Amino acid sequence: MAQNIYDNEGFFEEYSRLPRSVDGLDAAPEWPALRAMLPELRGKNALGLGCGFGWFCRWARANGAAEVLGLDVSEKMLERARAKTHDAAITYTRADMEDLELPAASFDLAYSSLAFHYIEDLGGLMTEVHRSLVAGGRLVFSVEHPIYTAPSDPKFSVNAAGRTTWPVDGYLDEGPRSTDWLARGVIKQHRTVATYINTLVHTGFAILHIDEWGPTTNQIALHPEWADEHQPPPFLLMSARR
Amino acid sequence: MAQNIYDNEGFFEEYSRLPRSVDGLDAAPEWPALRAMLPELRGKNALGLGCGFGWFCRWARANGAAEVLGLDVSEKMLERARAKTHDAAITYTRADMEDLELPAASFDLAYSSLAFHYIEDLGGLMTEVHRSLVAGGRLVFSVEHPIYTAPSDPKFSVNAAGRTTWPVDGYLDEGPRSTDWLARGVIKQHRTVATYINTLVHTGFAILHIDEWGPTTNQIALHPEWADEHQPPPFLLMSARR
Repeated sequence: MAQNIYDNEGFFEEYSRLPRSVDGLDAAPEWPALRAMLPELRGKNALGLGCGFGWFCRWARANGAAEVLGLDVSEKMLERARAKTHDAAITYTRADMEDLELPAASFDLAYSSLAFHYIEDLGGLMTEVHRSLVAGGRLVFSVEHPIYTAPSDPKFSVNAAGRTTWPVDGYLDEGPRSTDWLARGVIKQHRTVATYINTLVHTGFAILHIDEWGPTTNQIALHPEWADEHQPPPFLLMSARR
Repeated sequence: MAQNIYDNEGFFEEYSRLPRSVDGLDAAPEWPALRAMLPELRGKNALGLGCGFGWFCRWARANGAAEVLGLDVSEKMLERARAKTHDAAITYTRADMEDLELPAASFDLAYSSLAFHYIEDLGGLMTEVHRSLVAGGRLVFSVEHPIYTAPSDPKFSVNAAGRTTWPVDGYLDEGPRSTDWLARGVIKQHRTVATYINTLVHTGFAILHIDEWGPTTNQIALHPEWADEHQPPPFLLMSARR
């Protein structure tokens, strides 16, 4: 099983205070880009992989989804999700994405936000997700961008010309990266953009769109502290079709 | 028309002395990875986009291609290519990839090595290449990797821990980059990995494989001076199917 940092008491408390935890999807700056990649949900069945507090599951229902299954490895997250949800068409179940078993050909959409970079066996997960989708079904997900996860010392620096730069090393050396984010020693799996794409293609998915997301000019005007995130794109968004 | 740096006297002389210019494909360290992405060529028609001295065109014929058309914007390159070629099934023609007209459904393979990053209108070029391929035909190409072309000051630096890093800034700011490579003020077009992929997909191509190429451990053992190139992958290789 992958490191389940979300059930760490200190991490969970810190995570619970993030804007996206308190205010949901609209507090996540990449959400408009991710939403634009989603198919029409009316009458469709959706799967949330790493569903957290269930914000996406509820959004999917509010946008017409017939049934929604939210999976997460963290009991704490699921408890909070259940407490926030009053809808018999949404089910939350504990599941480890490293060892997932899903019903075949059951979902029109599999969705995941910022969870796959915790997974060691991406190929195994993609195979299971592919199997769980109907023909023509979509996979839409985000991960931390590989340029962002690569460095051995992930800190911005300022060059002689006064420009902020991001020090890339080890981009091609895939594997775990330990970072101090909300808690010490959070383990994320660094893999290349090529590995994400090739894993999907070799599993049988057709790539539809990718977005190397960074804040828009309007978003930077509202949040000047996000300007550096325009250097390495913080998130990689992908959509694919079974 | 794109900057035609290859007809610059000084640049051409320097370029002519590069190992890959003197010794051809086997002197290019990324060639084995690119070759692995090529389809079977026996009896097929191939198109070389930015064919340079014609190394690939001759290789394609030696590997069974029926007819090969090599296009390049540089008269100097084409003269040299013709002088090196004694094969009536290979034709070299001057053409500007910014304004290309190709016969429809005529090629089984379109191939290009390190040329598309000079092109401003990638979408226009991809549309024309797509039209020129038979159904099921392949496009295989390499470009300088976007992580490599992004920086405003593209120079390795060494961090406090003694690790070589590559200072990424402006990754999401697409457009021209002026570099001093063999000559001063060589203009290359920086675009993101997402733009390469989305342009192909939106043109109608299916992505088959991408390779963010860096030297292998064996290659670094033979050429220790290539070790830094493992930090930002220097080349992006892609294959797609019409």
